[in-house]
Amino acid sequence: MGEGANRMPIGVTMGDPGGIGPEVVAKAIAALGSEPQAPLVVFGDAQVLEQQWGDPDGAWVVVLDEGAAAEALGSGARVVVIDVASSGGRAPVEHQPTAESGAASFEYVERAIAACASGPLRLGALCTAPISKTAWHLAGHTEFPGHTEFLAERFGVGDRFAMLFVGPRLRVALVTVHEPLARVRGLITSERVRTTIELIDEACRRLGTPRPRIAVCGFNPHAGEQGLLGDEDESLIRPGIDAARAAGIDASGPFPADTVFLAASNGHYDGVVAMYHDQGLIPVKLLDRDEAVNVTVGLPVPRTSPAHGTAYDIAGSGRADPGSMLASLRLAMRLSGASPGGT
Amino acid sequence: MGEGANRMPIGVTMGDPGGIGPEVVAKAIAALGSEPQAPLVVFGDAQVLEQQWGDPDGAWVVVLDEGAAAEALGSGARVVVIDVASSGGRAPVEHQPTAESGAASFEYVERAIAACASGPLRLGALCTAPISKTAWHLAGHTEFPGHTEFLAERFGVGDRFAMLFVGPRLRVALVTVHEPLARVRGLITSERVRTTIELIDEACRRLGTPRPRIAVCGFNPHAGEQGLLGDEDESLIRPGIDAARAAGIDASGPFPADTVFLAASNGHYDGVVAMYHDQGLIPVKLLDRDEAVNVTVGLPVPRTSPAHGTAYDIAGSGRADPGSMLASLRLAMRLSGASPGGT
Repeated sequence: MGEGANRMPIGVTMGDPGGIGPEVVAKAIAALGSEPQAPLVVFGDAQVLEQQWGDPDGAWVVVLDEGAAAEALGSGARVVVIDVASSGGRAPVEHQPTAESGAASFEYVERAIAACASGPLRLGALCTAPISKTAWHLAGHTEFPGHTEFLAERFGVGDRFAMLFVGPRLRVALVTVHEPLARVRGLITSERVRTTIELIDEACRRLGTPRPRIAVCGFNPHAGEQGLLGDEDESLIRPGIDAARAAGIDASGPFPADTVFLAASNGHYDGVVAMYHDQGLIPVKLLDRDEAVNVTVGLPVPRTSPAHGTAYDIAGSGRADPGSMLASLRLAMRLSGASPGGT
Repeated sequence: MGEGANRMPIGVTMGDPGGIGPEVVAKAIAALGSEPQAPLVVFGDAQVLEQQWGDPDGAWVVVLDEGAAAEALGSGARVVVIDVASSGGRAPVEHQPTAESGAASFEYVERAIAACASGPLRLGALCTAPISKTAWHLAGHTEFPGHTEFLAERFGVGDRFAMLFVGPRLRVALVTVHEPLARVRGLITSERVRTTIELIDEACRRLGTPRPRIAVCGFNPHAGEQGLLGDEDESLIRPGIDAARAAGIDASGPFPADTVFLAASNGHYDGVVAMYHDQGLIPVKLLDRDEAVNVTVGLPVPRTSPAHGTAYDIAGSGRADPGSMLASLRLAMRLSGASPGGT
């Protein structure tokens, strides 16, 4: 039996049937080959996946529900596809957002979430291929801005979750994400800063750093320059850092955001907490480019996803690069397998 | 006669006498050697400079005022030092901010400004070594946050100036600079966006790009995502871009700030306009590091300055790296020499 035989399975959602999700899922699983890995359970449309995949070596098994998937894993299968579309109806593959594709990709995620908390599978992590927010809206799922908020709501974690980017050079967690910049000031609290520090600290530990050094960005230029350029750095961010330090975390800052990412990429820090989207994503996309994986931390199981979207414009052409999906799968396995709780 | 013989002289201010300014000025001028250059007029303390320099080959001339400097240049001198300290009193060299050092470094700049607009020298550009804001405050010069605002006020350009960073990979202009982030929203206007586009466009032309392609960052994540994440991108920034385009400039955007700098560094744009300090400085310091030169554009003469400060902690040790000062001197010559107005 392989090294991954006793590991909890990873749930993989196929994403929008008309996007590049099916192609990158199929290519990434093929690329994993025989490397030591946890078993994979893919939630999607088996017919769509087959078109991408062809199952040349018979390494995957198609089943109709979670119970049959658990049985297949018990019999030694390493990749099992739950053909969710067989019960929910197959969405015709169109390379654009449709109500059908939105309903389908929504259901893949919903089924995968349910298979984490209960039932026969007990997934140890999730890896989600890209959905279309527009398609979700067309399907009537208007209450969630995206995957992340849907997962947080279904898992009932309140606001104790964060978006983290993990790349070869940087690990960056965001205090706020998709918010108008003028609203960010009102959303930063010391408690939220502390929570985000705790979540990236935990993620770094899962990734093998026993005592992570966490740097925290300031909000203002020069981290406020002792209050001359704004008081948020001292009044909101520093107390959050102090609270994390009191809880035993090696957090420091607030640091000027225009120098701290270079210091982190040079190995001086294991993770950086950014206050808002562009502050964190500008350095991630400049230094780690397409190699950064998006991770949602704070959920009962870690969830990873590739950096790209549905890319309808190239979907169906066979030209999609599975690199980010492959990195997402591998990271899901590392985050799941290294759980300090021994789950 | 060398290539630079007919070029307008460049004014160089020595900066704080106790900082690394004198050392990097001396080293940078020595490093220029005999490369084609405009003549240089240094405003400072000749005794302090001599300690750094020693004038091994007699290539510089010390004079007491601007008239004598003009005469020396007329006689073929390539580097002339105006010993401002001989009339204003010599500041004792202490490697910390003092009232005397603040008064001295302020006067160097004031004399250099005066020598641009009138008098016998008619400088074509300025290159300023670092001053200490604290020393300026101790000397009673509390009305200016720094060099840039002082220059803008003395030259009477109102708010039609901008801070620009020029490095090997990026050229970035800022719509706002040293402002608390919560105040930035109220400072961005379509007119200010348009002005900043015009100023970076002109600088790119001076640097030899006949029709610069200027990219403009959005204010919100994803440049507002069609208004879902804030309306400033459409209501304030786009009209500024449209006005610049109507004036014949190849400006485009607003673009998501987390992808536009990579595109610019890959050669898709000649300059980028950022809305606030960290949005522009994070990419500059990650990609161009210490090679970026700070330029003030919109003044009657371009002004450059190195990326570092006074660095009192290493001043006097001989260990200061003149690289940024040398890049600033060379850029001042390029910006002056390539003036499309033929001045």
